[in-house]
Amino acid sequence: MTSPLRLGIAGLGTVGAGVVKIVRQKAELLSHRTGRGIEIVAVSARNRDKDRGVSLQPFDWEDDPVALASRDDVDVLVELIGGSDGPAKAATEAALKRGKDVVTANKAMLAHHGQALAELAETNGAALRFEAAVAGGIPVVKALTEGLAGNEITRVMGVMNGTCNYILTRMESGGLTYQEAFDEADGLGFLEADPELDVGGIDAGHKLSLLSSIAFGTQVAFDAVELEGIGRVSIDDIRQAADMGFKIKLLGTCRMTGRGLEQRMAPCLVPERSALGQLDGGTNMVVIEGDQVGQIVLRGAGAGEGPTASAVMGDVIDIARGYRGSTFGQAASSLKPATPAKSATPASYYLRMSLTDKPGALAKVATALGDAGISINRMRQYDHTSDTAPVLIVTHKTTRAALDQAIDAMAGTGVVQGTPVALRIERV
Amino acid sequence: MTSPLRLGIAGLGTVGAGVVKIVRQKAELLSHRTGRGIEIVAVSARNRDKDRGVSLQPFDWEDDPVALASRDDVDVLVELIGGSDGPAKAATEAALKRGKDVVTANKAMLAHHGQALAELAETNGAALRFEAAVAGGIPVVKALTEGLAGNEITRVMGVMNGTCNYILTRMESGGLTYQEAFDEADGLGFLEADPELDVGGIDAGHKLSLLSSIAFGTQVAFDAVELEGIGRVSIDDIRQAADMGFKIKLLGTCRMTGRGLEQRMAPCLVPERSALGQLDGGTNMVVIEGDQVGQIVLRGAGAGEGPTASAVMGDVIDIARGYRGSTFGQAASSLKPATPAKSATPASYYLRMSLTDKPGALAKVATALGDAGISINRMRQYDHTSDTAPVLIVTHKTTRAALDQAIDAMAGTGVVQGTPVALRIERV
Repeated sequence: MTSPLRLGIAGLGTVGAGVVKIVRQKAELLSHRTGRGIEIVAVSARNRDKDRGVSLQPFDWEDDPVALASRDDVDVLVELIGGSDGPAKAATEAALKRGKDVVTANKAMLAHHGQALAELAETNGAALRFEAAVAGGIPVVKALTEGLAGNEITRVMGVMNGTCNYILTRMESGGLTYQEAFDEADGLGFLEADPELDVGGIDAGHKLSLLSSIAFGTQVAFDAVELEGIGRVSIDDIRQAADMGFKIKLLGTCRMTGRGLEQRMAPCLVPERSALGQLDGGTNMVVIEGDQVGQIVLRGAGAGEGPTASAVMGDVIDIARGYRGSTFGQAASSLKPATPAKSATPASYYLRMSLTDKPGALAKVATALGDAGISINRMRQYDHTSDTAPVLIVTHKTTRAALDQAIDAMAGTGVVQGTPVALRIERV
Repeated sequence: MTSPLRLGIAGLGTVGAGVVKIVRQKAELLSHRTGRGIEIVAVSARNRDKDRGVSLQPFDWEDDPVALASRDDVDVLVELIGGSDGPAKAATEAALKRGKDVVTANKAMLAHHGQALAELAETNGAALRFEAAVAGGIPVVKALTEGLAGNEITRVMGVMNGTCNYILTRMESGGLTYQEAFDEADGLGFLEADPELDVGGIDAGHKLSLLSSIAFGTQVAFDAVELEGIGRVSIDDIRQAADMGFKIKLLGTCRMTGRGLEQRMAPCLVPERSALGQLDGGTNMVVIEGDQVGQIVLRGAGAGEGPTASAVMGDVIDIARGYRGSTFGQAASSLKPATPAKSATPASYYLRMSLTDKPGALAKVATALGDAGISINRMRQYDHTSDTAPVLIVTHKTTRAALDQAIDAMAGTGVVQGTPVALRIERV
């Protein structure tokens, strides 16, 4: 009989409490599945007295997560503190330096320090695993690094921020403005302390940068993700998109091209009846394309106690079984620095802008597009009462660079008010 | 540097040739991902001279797969011969007895001999892995046995036979009769040598029995799968279902209940706009429900050279990395014999039957249903020119046992011609 695997859990929010419940309540199931016991030795959190719906009596308490990570009787640190630096990183480093394995749900930490931490793990013969950091309960890290490891991955796409998806879904189903839907999500506790992490696309961008590393064997390059949040999506955009048979989703895409690695996280139009278009609320979806397997689609809950704890336990169970693999699917020392490339895959774009209502305004916009080599698929100017005319344009396929050139030229015409909203149309 | 992993490949059909191509053409990628070389030492097939689009020159040839499996220089037997017994089983046993690992795509062999082979593997310290046996390129065995291993699985459903899905899709999209669509699939080479394996639901039933073993920790119990093929689904059924917003899919379901293990593979009505309803042609889908994770949906190609070879390589790569796990997700000796239970989850049913056109006929059918405690949601008798009246009934929720009782009673009335077609309506 192998000795039990001993966990130290740092961070006892929703997910931490969920992990404690699974380890305590499913001891028999886990021991059948791993051939050994899994037990919690000690825990650490900011507030010892908070009621978490689960007894912490049987475990040692550590005020300092670094002290927890350093205990001789802890085999695996489960890091659920969060935040890219501070105590989460200090505890992770302390554990890895002592050759202890780490299971984390911390996308921000890995997006910023993934390469250094993976190297630290490797140097010390420790495992650093992060299934719970990406797409909640969906075992997508495992699918990419293991199940599909016989493929050259050609593209990965994902809707991976439940809060943004909730806001966009409520704008559509409830006819709410962006601000109303944002406030509703806030009231339900869906938003991070810094909401920009969610609505600015940063959280989803963190996740995308981890997926592109494991998909393409490159070092995590979060700073190279082209990021655009959902803050400029209006109820008008939602309605116009719906009229054309589309929904708007915050969609991440990464591709390896001859020019380098494209990574983009931005609101896009996707066909209403596609798998991505039918995603509601907090559900996540990841689409993986490989040269052998074709397209694999994975869907599931992207957050919450059960799903995230499920992902944490997947990693813990792997370690209990002795599957301790490389952090990013191959030796950290063999990951190549990413060469970022601006995304150049042509697409149709949705453009919405406000024009000063005077003769020739529309012609000037059309000319700016034509001069950039962009042809127009549809163009509509709407009824209006003010002296500002709302205009909607759908382009034929073009590149983002050509579009940016046209938008710059429009700014010089003096007839376009503010910056147009430009959303890529993804026919997936 | 670890020594290379040496493969012996038995069976060089489409999938075997695909595996040879990946190992030869992706040597660098594989060695980055596993930290060691993967090489093919020897191969075996029935016909040495057939052109497989790939050179076999570099490999030793063995006429006898058992001899291949027994070679001292083979670490892993890749069994792609197929068939539940015969050379596939003999070679698998020969390899396992010598402590060699086996990777197989053979659902029939595992459905019939899975428990004995898993025990043989365990006794000899060998791994027996079968990702490619279920749902082609979708890494569902890995998702269930590893990624979601922290869950109690509550239900698994799947559309896992691409040929049946192709036939049903063509009946719907092309307005073909069952026989026409069957012949078309046959002409395209989609059907097994014994077509009953496909259209009788046997192949899909094999896969379901493997999934229920790993989901519930029970010994494979293929004989207990309630099996129904698609042979009685008519173009009328497809059209009637479409009128009500449904599609017909050969759907497998397994659940663990207080009474025992339910396993059912049968054509069902699923909502047209659901994820299952939108599956076309050869695409497979598996839906997994766990107590922690909620619902996870996996979609991808269910067959073909690339997708199946991708799944084989996932297992080979795991073994190269030293992840050699138990066949069915826990020690074979700890798998409990399944207690089969007839499925008793209530559902609405779609019934189609032919009535002798005489007064009171419809009333007799309605009485048979009422006597069995089944209430009717919709009932329609169609225009007809012959003296046989086609009748369609949709019931409110009832059990299969009550429905069978009603169908027995109908037989006694003398007004129902033949046996009614009864299809479960799954609102997933």
